[in-house]
Amino acid sequence: MAMVCLSDFEAYAKKYLPKIAWDYFAAGADDCTTRDENILAYKRIRFRPRMLRDVSVMDIRTKILGSEISFPVGIAPTGFHQLAWPDGEKSTARAARAMNTCYIASTYSTCTLEEISAAAPGGLRWFQLYIHRNRAASRRLVRRAEALGFQGLVLTADLPYTGKRRDDIRNGFRLPPHMKVKNLEGAFEVCKMSPLDPSVTWNDIYWLRSLTRLPIIIKGILTREDAELAVKHGVQGIIVSNHGGRQLDEGPATIDALVEVVEAVGGRVEVYVDGGIRKGSDVLKALALGAKCVFIGRPALWGLAYKGEEGLQDVLRILQDEFRLSMALAG
Amino acid sequence: MAMVCLSDFEAYAKKYLPKIAWDYFAAGADDCTTRDENILAYKRIRFRPRMLRDVSVMDIRTKILGSEISFPVGIAPTGFHQLAWPDGEKSTARAARAMNTCYIASTYSTCTLEEISAAAPGGLRWFQLYIHRNRAASRRLVRRAEALGFQGLVLTADLPYTGKRRDDIRNGFRLPPHMKVKNLEGAFEVCKMSPLDPSVTWNDIYWLRSLTRLPIIIKGILTREDAELAVKHGVQGIIVSNHGGRQLDEGPATIDALVEVVEAVGGRVEVYVDGGIRKGSDVLKALALGAKCVFIGRPALWGLAYKGEEGLQDVLRILQDEFRLSMALAG
Amino acid sequence: MAMVCLSDFEAYAKKYLPKIAWDYFAAGADDCTTRDENILAYKRIRFRPRMLRDVSVMDIRTKILGSEISFPVGIAPTGFHQLAWPDGEKSTARAARAMNTCYIASTYSTCTLEEISAAAPGGLRWFQLYIHRNRAASRRLVRRAEALGFQGLVLTADLPYTGKRRDDIRNGFRLPPHMKVKNLEGAFEVCKMSPLDPSVTWNDIYWLRSLTRLPIIIKGILTREDAELAVKHGVQGIIVSNHGGRQLDEGPATIDALVEVVEAVGGRVEVYVDGGIRKGSDVLKALALGAKCVFIGRPALWGLAYKGEEGLQDVLRILQDEFRLSMALAG
Amino acid sequence: MAMVCLSDFEAYAKKYLPKIAWDYFAAGADDCTTRDENILAYKRIRFRPRMLRDVSVMDIRTKILGSEISFPVGIAPTGFHQLAWPDGEKSTARAARAMNTCYIASTYSTCTLEEISAAAPGGLRWFQLYIHRNRAASRRLVRRAEALGFQGLVLTADLPYTGKRRDDIRNGFRLPPHMKVKNLEGAFEVCKMSPLDPSVTWNDIYWLRSLTRLPIIIKGILTREDAELAVKHGVQGIIVSNHGGRQLDEGPATIDALVEVVEAVGGRVEVYVDGGIRKGSDVLKALALGAKCVFIGRPALWGLAYKGEEGLQDVLRILQDEFRLSMALAG
Repeated sequence: MAMVCLSDFEAYAKKYLPKIAWDYFAAGADDCTTRDENILAYKRIRFRPRMLRDVSVMDIRTKILGSEISFPVGIAPTGFHQLAWPDGEKSTARAARAMNTCYIASTYSTCTLEEISAAAPGGLRWFQLYIHRNRAASRRLVRRAEALGFQGLVLTADLPYTGKRRDDIRNGFRLPPHMKVKNLEGAFEVCKMSPLDPSVTWNDIYWLRSLTRLPIIIKGILTREDAELAVKHGVQGIIVSNHGGRQLDEGPATIDALVEVVEAVGGRVEVYVDGGIRKGSDVLKALALGAKCVFIGRPALWGLAYKGEEGLQDVLRILQDEFRLSMALAG
Repeated sequence: MAMVCLSDFEAYAKKYLPKIAWDYFAAGADDCTTRDENILAYKRIRFRPRMLRDVSVMDIRTKILGSEISFPVGIAPTGFHQLAWPDGEKSTARAARAMNTCYIASTYSTCTLEEISAAAPGGLRWFQLYIHRNRAASRRLVRRAEALGFQGLVLTADLPYTGKRRDDIRNGFRLPPHMKVKNLEGAFEVCKMSPLDPSVTWNDIYWLRSLTRLPIIIKGILTREDAELAVKHGVQGIIVSNHGGRQLDEGPATIDALVEVVEAVGGRVEVYVDGGIRKGSDVLKALALGAKCVFIGRPALWGLAYKGEEGLQDVLRILQDEFRLSMALAG
Repeated sequence: MAMVCLSDFEAYAKKYLPKIAWDYFAAGADDCTTRDENILAYKRIRFRPRMLRDVSVMDIRTKILGSEISFPVGIAPTGFHQLAWPDGEKSTARAARAMNTCYIASTYSTCTLEEISAAAPGGLRWFQLYIHRNRAASRRLVRRAEALGFQGLVLTADLPYTGKRRDDIRNGFRLPPHMKVKNLEGAFEVCKMSPLDPSVTWNDIYWLRSLTRLPIIIKGILTREDAELAVKHGVQGIIVSNHGGRQLDEGPATIDALVEVVEAVGGRVEVYVDGGIRKGSDVLKALALGAKCVFIGRPALWGLAYKGEEGLQDVLRILQDEFRLSMALAG
Repeated sequence: MAMVCLSDFEAYAKKYLPKIAWDYFAAGADDCTTRDENILAYKRIRFRPRMLRDVSVMDIRTKILGSEISFPVGIAPTGFHQLAWPDGEKSTARAARAMNTCYIASTYSTCTLEEISAAAPGGLRWFQLYIHRNRAASRRLVRRAEALGFQGLVLTADLPYTGKRRDDIRNGFRLPPHMKVKNLEGAFEVCKMSPLDPSVTWNDIYWLRSLTRLPIIIKGILTREDAELAVKHGVQGIIVSNHGGRQLDEGPATIDALVEVVEAVGGRVEVYVDGGIRKGSDVLKALALGAKCVFIGRPALWGLAYKGEEGLQDVLRILQDEFRLSMALAG
């Protein structure tokens, strides 16, 4: 089976992953409308290709918050990479470093931050976090990440509660016994309540600011009003995201929301986008609409499922080649 | 089989109900375009989700015509509940009371108003009626309902004649011999004409008004012109409804009609809506567009078909949970 | 099999007619886009239903060019009725008279005008004609129709050449040997050229006018420009038609074209429409958009194929009932 | 099997060509969105048919750059005709001459320019070329074409690199050993780099101009901006083309792009269009929107695959008949 485009990796993962893992990665909230809209919205956007421009040399490197990456595609935070590949997030970190791009490690990793750092020293990494009811636990995570050389903190704003993913409920999804959310081990007492704090508000950005000198990137913004609030509260970056369509169903596709966020921000902070990226030309569209960089979620997991570190590199390399070709053909 | 969302109950009912009963409940007029549009129209409405609001405590109770219900979802009037569950409307009444919401009992119930009342004393109930050729029969029904403690009268305005439901004609639909439209027993001579009066006009609202001190809610309004007339004729509430798409096909979806009705009414009376509610987020959309409360028709029947009173409570509880989650995720 | 709606007759005809006959009746030009659009366009039109109007008595009779018909649905001209039923156009004429409506007999009938007249004396009939290269032949047809009591002449304007109907070409469609285009027998020498004259222009209306005192109705108008020309050249009626999608593919649906024709005509002559009528509510839509009456083509043939005269009456009766019900439900 | 419309030839070719050849001809870039849009966009355009015009005599000849062709459909440049028929481009040339139309021979022909010329002396032909890294090779090709009596040079502007055609990659597409890109034999050293020069810009038009007195037609223009540049750089014609959807996916359909190009050009040079032509009515639409002539790509290959020269003539004859009929029916 030739791996020619990202859909090939998707088909592979669907075929070879355990159903419960595939369903977890694929899940969208409710009717999965927003999950699918993320992709469909890209297809509705049309290029106006220009001809006879010298495209013999193209520089596709970019900088995000001052750090150079080899091309404008990073790894979005997703949980439980060991469900896709035994080495889990360690493989992800190695692949990202090999391709010289940014990896946002999730709080819900199956490896510790320390293991991730040790697996690929020197790689560009940000750390994704939630604000927990137990603020001391959040504080400890921030300090660990900062001490380990993570270069950004990504605060997820769209998960006061977990969205309703029907297949996960039907499957009774839970991690297999040999996997753990290692970053949080010992941090919480076993309790029935979700450890995440649904009372978090914009003022908690100031609290987070007080804990760290790292840049803060807020993830989950979909409206101009919230983009304005984010800038006002001093974040350094915004990731336009609907959590892969896993939270509130029937909100906007991220590429559509990007337009109004970019306009509201007016260049004051960097804006990124995730959700629905499946081809190099999608990357080009996102950049043309004002994103500084995009992040891929599920495609990274498919790459891991295919061949771990190597498979994820394949995915990134295909996106890179397609992105470069799209740029050339679009002039 | 896990019952995770309302579609699961629909699938169950389709599988286990006798075909003739399923077809009767599912039927739409003509090509069923409006029946299906009721659902599709909700999907076309998009949220603009807001982030980082304190959603740790939410109050989802509301009041309709002064009575508190636990959340803004009531039971719409539908006929022949014994087709779905042996105890029929008695189970419906018990489930509604258990969930502390409003149940609109249909004239075409297979239990009497007295049986319904006795099954769940103290529950909030409205009574749905048509105006019959035999006005004395209508008057007696109104008096019985009032005496039994029903707290509202819902006048159905969209059924001068019954819509053309092809499957019912093909099936030769009629109640099985052991079921009866008990509320009407003895009220009419057997005759070939429909007992309903197609010559009813707005002035008959005044006649109805003269019979009772109960609030009058008119059901079946779809245009601003009729909403204006309803207010002018002194009703206390309006249910925007197209009878589940069972009357005139190819009219508007109710959620679309709601917008113009709410605008025309301008807060002078309460406005409700039924038709097409399948998820908690649909409830949130209806409320965001101005409805005070929604009513569910077919989903209530699916719940009954699943496990009677208990099944209907399951349906209501799922909607309640989904509604609360949608509110939190939408900020 | 219960015959509940027109689609039931369509399914019957498709099942029991010889393929070559079914294909001929069903055929559309090229990709059949316009044929299908005729139907889809009706579905896009939405009612605004009004409530609580006295609909106990409704008069659905109308007049076309001064003659009363029992409801605003007539029989459009279609060819070769013997392909559907042995008695052919004689059955059609009897059914139309029984239902007290207008039948437009086609030049391409498999019965003569004389046979049609004799089959149902006193029925309201118009005669459809083309202008032939051999004008004398056309003149003789007009005189025969007038002498036989036909009360209108319908000039088909959209067939300078026959549209490309792929299935007919594949099937090598031709009438079986025992059927004949009897009206034209002896009128033409056998020749390779089509007998129809592609050089016909608006001035030929004056020529036709000079032959007869009958009202002239022009069939095949789809634009305001041509509607204006038709009025200017003195026709008495216009049938908005695209020949059932059998001539130029990818023109407008007739119900869409009706709007601009009605506007251009401004009441100076009567406007009718054919194409895509499948339900009583379609009739109501056409009338609401300004048609005085509609004509049905293929559904009449399905009725014939089902049970001849009786089947066609069934079709008309269903449309009549549905039309009356739609009027009541739409207020 | 009756060959009634172009889809019949497509079905034949799909059935009888080797999969690798069919896939190569059918291929579109990425998701094939633009390839399919080329066709869908024609379907979205609606005629406004006019009636009662004298259509007994119609002249469908036209002139392109001063040369008369029998009807406004030419053969677009496509590669590797021997994959479709043993005689390859020689058959194409003969068919084009027989139908008295223009054939644009591709650089990537499997016959030499000399063989093509000798196969059909006197036919109207243009030569399609790319600009190679090795300019001397390009120069030699131009001189050969001019010397052989080709009457126009078609510069392809949309292929700085080859688009990503997934099936070709999966199939490992390459010419079978007995076929050669004969025009280029000996012109290049074997090298890993594409022989085409991605650094070509508008100024290279001047270089091309300096080599030849033939008119230069630029192929691949999709925007008003590039149309303006093309006119400014002195080309004699523009072919609006997206390379059959084989280069940048998700750009505009050619018939949509035609409108803005025609407007920008304002009659200063001739404008043609290719891509998506499947029926005579498509030709009429393109002409109505300002094209002087259309070119067909894949349909020509299907004709070759069916019966070589004869099959291609069949395809052209069907288009001619359909075009003439559409003109008559549209008035």
